[in-house]
Amino acid sequence: MAQLDEFSLIRALTDNRQSAAFLGACGVRVGVGDDAAVAETTPGRELVLSCDTMVEDVHFKRVTMRDSDIGFKAMASNISDMAAMGAVPRLALVALSVPAAMPLERLKALYDGIYECAGRYRVAVVGGDTTSTRGALTLTVTMTGEVEKGRALLRSAARPGQVVFVTGYPGMSAAGLELLLGLDCPSDRWPEFAPELAPLVEAHCRPLPQVEAGRLLLASGNCGALNDISDGLASEAWEIAEASGCGLLLDSRRIPVHGSLRAYAALTGKDPLDWMFYGGEDYQLIGTADRKGFASLSEALGKAGIPVREIGTVSGSFVGVRALDGGGRDVPLAKKGYNHFREVD
Amino acid sequence: MAQLDEFSLIRALTDNRQSAAFLGACGVRVGVGDDAAVAETTPGRELVLSCDTMVEDVHFKRVTMRDSDIGFKAMASNISDMAAMGAVPRLALVALSVPAAMPLERLKALYDGIYECAGRYRVAVVGGDTTSTRGALTLTVTMTGEVEKGRALLRSAARPGQVVFVTGYPGMSAAGLELLLGLDCPSDRWPEFAPELAPLVEAHCRPLPQVEAGRLLLASGNCGALNDISDGLASEAWEIAEASGCGLLLDSRRIPVHGSLRAYAALTGKDPLDWMFYGGEDYQLIGTADRKGFASLSEALGKAGIPVREIGTVSGSFVGVRALDGGGRDVPLAKKGYNHFREVD
Repeated sequence: MAQLDEFSLIRALTDNRQSAAFLGACGVRVGVGDDAAVAETTPGRELVLSCDTMVEDVHFKRVTMRDSDIGFKAMASNISDMAAMGAVPRLALVALSVPAAMPLERLKALYDGIYECAGRYRVAVVGGDTTSTRGALTLTVTMTGEVEKGRALLRSAARPGQVVFVTGYPGMSAAGLELLLGLDCPSDRWPEFAPELAPLVEAHCRPLPQVEAGRLLLASGNCGALNDISDGLASEAWEIAEASGCGLLLDSRRIPVHGSLRAYAALTGKDPLDWMFYGGEDYQLIGTADRKGFASLSEALGKAGIPVREIGTVSGSFVGVRALDGGGRDVPLAKKGYNHFREVD
Repeated sequence: MAQLDEFSLIRALTDNRQSAAFLGACGVRVGVGDDAAVAETTPGRELVLSCDTMVEDVHFKRVTMRDSDIGFKAMASNISDMAAMGAVPRLALVALSVPAAMPLERLKALYDGIYECAGRYRVAVVGGDTTSTRGALTLTVTMTGEVEKGRALLRSAARPGQVVFVTGYPGMSAAGLELLLGLDCPSDRWPEFAPELAPLVEAHCRPLPQVEAGRLLLASGNCGALNDISDGLASEAWEIAEASGCGLLLDSRRIPVHGSLRAYAALTGKDPLDWMFYGGEDYQLIGTADRKGFASLSEALGKAGIPVREIGTVSGSFVGVRALDGGGRDVPLAKKGYNHFREVD
């Protein structure tokens, strides 16, 4: 990229990616190219804001992600934050700091991923900043969304007597990461993955945030607290418990285990629960819901093709997280979070 | 910072910086601590969005800025983008990537600057992301603001016959940078600067965005195009000219020269115009206005203590930027932009 100045680089990466018609339909009045972007807001809704940074060698390496995955996931992590508030994602800004030696083709692939994810979730990319760096490739995506006034789903809203639920199959992303680190092969030379393991790689590299689930949960009126599983099920359960001042009792035997995770655990002789509790970046949702409304809520999600499972209950008799282990014994669950390169790096 | 985990670090840097009363008055419903922040929007206004990244050794060095200046300026550069749209800045997200060796005290100083600038302009800091990096200290601030529906001041709104104006004294920041690079002394050991040169250092390290000027310009109804001078007067004039499809003819003899700039130019034997045209980061405003309304507009800004000066006219007979030089000759003005470490690095 050294041969392009900043303006030419931005144009090479962003020109003609989203049509004027699409941006107009997204409520964008001024997009890339002025001092700032301008967009309409929706009456009766509030503004939701998040940002997430991905740094090479901290959040990804060339053996754990393709360039397009980096862009896709930076967008997805923010969309997941929107989903976890019950919000609709709307606009994104992309701040990229690029080492001088990085070829333009790699940057284009990274932006391919950004726009692929943005298009999938109808997010308009309205600006950003592209700078050089003498350090690591660093990508910060900031996102705005909207949620009905006063209705955002907060982590402080768990109440004793509610059920604890999870969408999808936790732990797949972390298992995928471990598989890729073990393979230790640059992503542009990855082999074809066996069908029973490919979903783990997909879960790590192309996670799909649960926006529709978040919207259905909000609309149901039965949802209490909600978090996305970016730092692992245990860590997110702890955040809900502490923010709500109550206890979450999870039953590890009820947490759904994906066939791929089971296969990889068998192959490696590991306990799938370790990934399920302490692996991050699944971008699934953990939440609480009123018991009386959970059946209909579960049905609504099921109709939309979203797996949801009751995995525990909220208790008023302690603050924190406990789990029933495989033998049904009640044990405290460690508060530890997710560390990308904990085991192999 | 290696001894703190991410959550403890964020708390050490952000806890108790802005009161609940202040955040409430800023319309913040959910601040730091959930998946995303939630804030009210103002009926009849649109959302304005910008972001800016500062990278160590690209945008600043230890000899050109104190740690608190880095934070202050990252915030200021975004507030300046809001000013350049005629918008009111409202909310900020701070994404910081920190080398492991950076002491907590330096990070705290950086956040001191962030909050000093935020407080001065009534901006609520509602979230962000703090990550480690093996590379350079990188700071991305994203900001939201608001502007009356359909009223944002765009760079495409210059029209033939209008006057070109500038606020403040361009070139001071670049001269300050040159002074500091020449001194080549770590910022924590800077000497006291001579009173005639101190304003240049201040302009580089603690620039004050012109939000009030932007609001007055918008309210006047007489303003055409508007840009902030982040990339230098020449470059910003070119952006207005190209976006508007017209010509800007500047009179270099009418651009105000600050006494400090004149003094430093005399000291170094340089032409102040070089900094004034090609130096960036003044965070002053360049714009165009209807000739008939300019006198009252100028008076309104003057009453608010904001220096504003007519420095040229908009022409329909060419596209681009020309300038009358010291001898009154009409010469084309180069399109080159601002490069932080062009001369000394």
